Amino acid sequence: MTILEKIRGPRDLKALSEAELGELSEEIREFLVHAVARTGGHLGPNLGVVELSLALHRVFESPVDRILWDTGHQSYVHKLLTGRQDFSKLRGKGGLSGYPSREESEHDVIENSHASTALGWADGLAKARQVQAEKGHVVAVIGDGALTGGMAWEALNNIAAAKNRPLIIVVNDNERSYAPTIGGLANHLATLRTTDSYEKVLAWGKDVLLRTPVVGTTIYESLHGAKKGFKDAFAPQGMFEDLGLKYVGPIDGHDVGAVESALRRAKRFHGPVLVHCLTEKGRGYEPALAHEEDHFHTVGVMDPLTCAPLAPSGGPSWTSVFGDEIVRIGEEREDVVAITAAMLHPVGLGKFAERFPDRVWDVGIAEQHAAVSAAGLATGGLHPVVAVYATFLNRAFDQLLMDVALHRCGVTFVLDRAGVTGVDGPSHNGMWDMSILQVVPGLRIAAPRDADQLRAQLREAVAVDDAPTLVRFPKESVGPSVPAVDRVGAMDVLHRGPGPSEVLLVAVGVMAPVCLQAAELLEARGIGCTVVDPRWVKPVDPALPGLAAGHRLVAVVEDNSRASGVGAAVALALGDAEVDVPVRRFGIPEQFLAHAKRGEVLADIGLTPVEVAGRISASLAVKEQAEGSHDGPAAVPVKEKAE
Amino acid sequence: MTILEKIRGPRDLKALSEAELGELSEEIREFLVHAVARTGGHLGPNLGVVELSLALHRVFESPVDRILWDTGHQSYVHKLLTGRQDFSKLRGKGGLSGYPSREESEHDVIENSHASTALGWADGLAKARQVQAEKGHVVAVIGDGALTGGMAWEALNNIAAAKNRPLIIVVNDNERSYAPTIGGLANHLATLRTTDSYEKVLAWGKDVLLRTPVVGTTIYESLHGAKKGFKDAFAPQGMFEDLGLKYVGPIDGHDVGAVESALRRAKRFHGPVLVHCLTEKGRGYEPALAHEEDHFHTVGVMDPLTCAPLAPSGGPSWTSVFGDEIVRIGEEREDVVAITAAMLHPVGLGKFAERFPDRVWDVGIAEQHAAVSAAGLATGGLHPVVAVYATFLNRAFDQLLMDVALHRCGVTFVLDRAGVTGVDGPSHNGMWDMSILQVVPGLRIAAPRDADQLRAQLREAVAVDDAPTLVRFPKESVGPSVPAVDRVGAMDVLHRGPGPSEVLLVAVGVMAPVCLQAAELLEARGIGCTVVDPRWVKPVDPALPGLAAGHRLVAVVEDNSRASGVGAAVALALGDAEVDVPVRRFGIPEQFLAHAKRGEVLADIGLTPVEVAGRISASLAVKEQAEGSHDGPAAVPVKEKAE
Repeated sequence: MTILEKIRGPRDLKALSEAELGELSEEIREFLVHAVARTGGHLGPNLGVVELSLALHRVFESPVDRILWDTGHQSYVHKLLTGRQDFSKLRGKGGLSGYPSREESEHDVIENSHASTALGWADGLAKARQVQAEKGHVVAVIGDGALTGGMAWEALNNIAAAKNRPLIIVVNDNERSYAPTIGGLANHLATLRTTDSYEKVLAWGKDVLLRTPVVGTTIYESLHGAKKGFKDAFAPQGMFEDLGLKYVGPIDGHDVGAVESALRRAKRFHGPVLVHCLTEKGRGYEPALAHEEDHFHTVGVMDPLTCAPLAPSGGPSWTSVFGDEIVRIGEEREDVVAITAAMLHPVGLGKFAERFPDRVWDVGIAEQHAAVSAAGLATGGLHPVVAVYATFLNRAFDQLLMDVALHRCGVTFVLDRAGVTGVDGPSHNGMWDMSILQVVPGLRIAAPRDADQLRAQLREAVAVDDAPTLVRFPKESVGPSVPAVDRVGAMDVLHRGPGPSEVLLVAVGVMAPVCLQAAELLEARGIGCTVVDPRWVKPVDPALPGLAAGHRLVAVVEDNSRASGVGAAVALALGDAEVDVPVRRFGIPEQFLAHAKRGEVLADIGLTPVEVAGRISASLAVKEQAEGSHDGPAAVPVKEKAE
Repeated sequence: MTILEKIRGPRDLKALSEAELGELSEEIREFLVHAVARTGGHLGPNLGVVELSLALHRVFESPVDRILWDTGHQSYVHKLLTGRQDFSKLRGKGGLSGYPSREESEHDVIENSHASTALGWADGLAKARQVQAEKGHVVAVIGDGALTGGMAWEALNNIAAAKNRPLIIVVNDNERSYAPTIGGLANHLATLRTTDSYEKVLAWGKDVLLRTPVVGTTIYESLHGAKKGFKDAFAPQGMFEDLGLKYVGPIDGHDVGAVESALRRAKRFHGPVLVHCLTEKGRGYEPALAHEEDHFHTVGVMDPLTCAPLAPSGGPSWTSVFGDEIVRIGEEREDVVAITAAMLHPVGLGKFAERFPDRVWDVGIAEQHAAVSAAGLATGGLHPVVAVYATFLNRAFDQLLMDVALHRCGVTFVLDRAGVTGVDGPSHNGMWDMSILQVVPGLRIAAPRDADQLRAQLREAVAVDDAPTLVRFPKESVGPSVPAVDRVGAMDVLHRGPGPSEVLLVAVGVMAPVCLQAAELLEARGIGCTVVDPRWVKPVDPALPGLAAGHRLVAVVEDNSRASGVGAAVALALGDAEVDVPVRRFGIPEQFLAHAKRGEVLADIGLTPVEVAGRISASLAVKEQAEGSHDGPAAVPVKEKAE
């Protein structure tokens, strides 16, 4: 039985010797590499926090003390130490979540996988303890990358102000988030990492300065009187101490003893403290360390020795289709520039950055800044393409509305991972964009159904220079082309049944195949269908009401929230045109979706041809009955119309 | 002719002598006090930036150089200096905007009145200039209060990193936004303001340290080598220099010469510079300086000498009804706490803070933090009430969704200034909340129609401890009570016509009187109506489809975007229940609304009884015609039904 297997909970860690801790660290790394290789998941970040997690659980008493993991993908070790060692279905249906989960354990708090939130949570929890005079520490672990997000700053500003409210911030500084951390803060942290010369200066300086009189006092007192201690004046931890946070560090984050000792010091301090830990992403696993792009931030199913992928590739991804096309566009138009929020490669901008290094900016985990600086770039005469995961655009709603749209800036937003993403759980699904953005005046939204459409619509989008545009597509491989059989307005008609059309299926983007198959099922039951892909789902094509008129039912199918989405927009357009064909909306119900494979989730929420067809025909049946009983128009003899 | 009257544009400022500048400053203050007293508007902030605005326009060449005003309410002096001296209709229909406006002047850039955006805009504009090798400076003026917002941090982090990209940040430090600035940053700025002893230390220290050897080098070199200049080690400007920004200051912001000299220094520097100006809000106007709450941040129409309000008060405001009730609730429940984002008094939390000083937090201009720390507070066992202006909640959408709702936290959001606010222009209208928040699982939204309902629904909201709730109400005075005549489900029926009901009017919150009057007009034409106030507009009351069934038309009237709002939710609920009564949605069209009085805006967009009734009866007429021509059910002889 390994040491790891004997750990049932944090208490079991307390009695371990230094040697046993070292052994346990090795076992954990071994476990992580093999477990994550089997299911896929976050590897690099977890290999980096083995010792930190051990030290945290030895020094603090979770769950009375609250340990908060920012972003949460680095919580695997924490899971192992809090009674969760069955990783066999990690991120799979019914298996462990890839993030903290309160359903799994009382040791977990924050489930949100969006970065930079932990300090705000910590501030709230610490305030609640103070108001209720409760004991227990609040510890937030945040990466250096996440400190670039505005939420972290807002929280630091609040935390630092309360001198008598204990709260411990552990900065897990591995010099990167997904990509290397950027900006002034990163430079500052780099300075903090090199303290050697300062320590020497410090030893000498205090003595000299204490004895040196200047203008009626000593320098030391002069500095001290101005609210800056002597050490602050010489050592470069400046920034955090300037705000009012006690700074401890830098600490070697792979030395359990050193981390523990720093944490104990912080625990004794009755106010806000920042402990600066230096760690290495991918620590102990050579292939991760050698992987320059992201130190194996996330891996798919793979051979743990060779790192060869073991899951079949489904062909080119949506990301790569975008990534190739934006380079071609960049060749043709010098004014096209790109912005990423710390995810250059995942959003497909790697090739663009290679080709046009001066025309791409990584702004940090800072979606707000991505959008507002894009407004500035556009006003300055360029056409920025802001490429982010759909779920993270939530952070930039106000900026898209008030900075980009109000100022009529030509900015193209490209949303990867739109719709259901699956394994990363509720906060990674990009299922809100087509709902919340319906209100943005002038914004045009494209939902391409295949690779050809993505290329074409991306070009149409960047051609708009006086309003924002948005192109959204899902995770994973792009499917086969779906040809159009006709065009009405600017919409593609994908299918027209042989007989009269009773149901108009409005297929949003990748829902095209689902709609085509649903149409086939309906037509097999004698219900004539037309399937249309509006291509641009906002604004609603002016030709849509005319196309809908005369149908018995319009069904809008989207991989987006049913609330307020394309379905709502279509219903509004029909009503405004006095076309009162009933609209049925198919999409994601108003709930957070548990982690599972994308296909499993889609099936669970009924976004399948069988479900869509079934519900449409049930709806028609209800209508027939109602019409019959109200002496309305004679029920159409649907069945007889079948061939 | 005054000096001010002779100023046609920034060029006219260049030749003025120091004495003339002094005189001009006085004229401007005199003008501001009288002009703003006549129309209402932002007074204190503009009195504080007279000299700063003069210096900026003397040192820089707008519009080739871009001067960006963060938040924008302090741009009145800038307007006076750029050819806009007719303030007679300030913030009124057709008059000058209360914020920069690109339609008004080529000297204006940012129209968004949300704080903390200017640095992001500046970063984008500076990048665009660099890419295109264009000349011209980019200068952003931002208040110390706005620096507490996360966007400012994200921008600083990006700006500081580009050593060779010139950009000038002017921090207009008056120690407050609306309220005194809070947090670690405020403390740091306070330290920066007191530099006297440092200057003395500096003069002595450089010489000594340069000559003192330590560990094979000199202290000076040692500090310098570690990327920290000598001055940085001694003087407390630490934080900004730590990030990599050149710091100039502090400067007396009311000394035109000193400000000019600092700006010229900054202009010569080929990289990012921060100029720290100390100003006084309300400068030169005693009543403003004496006004502790906000130094006359905004004033209504008033006598400039006595400051007595000259516009009749319309009775108690929505804000005060909330402010009184939340104190009563606080008396009854110790766990109820409150959060404001730098607007304690404007959102009605003044009395609560007086009564329970330890149970209210001002988090700075930091709506993200307001929401995420509320999640922490709720998880810690308290019930936070987050009170913000509706338009500013846009900033916290992601936190409301992913931190509060996903974690099923009992947090009550209270949105003041919901719907059309009017004079503050497009970015102050709170017209998006009921649309974008439709997607939030578990969230309950109340739109009270009168003071009684506000009190009752606020109590219902804070009683929910496992999900977020939201209560929204408009600006200005609360109207008379609107009694219910019946209740269906949890909905109040406000009116039932004498005959059969053909139209169901769903009145959202303060749209109740509009709907009641529209019903009266329709009934005068023989169209029977029922008016229902759903009270809780999300989720849709399960009894609504049943109530709607049998009507010829459902009209949903809301002071919110027509896109994706309550109307969309009602249409979805009806469709799901297979109740295919056509729905017509009345609300704010998809556009940004120019400044004008609230009533004028509502009239312009057709949210009046006459318009609503007219469109409903037109819709019915179209339906009648269509039904007739399709041999549908016989057209109802509407006219004959009139009594």
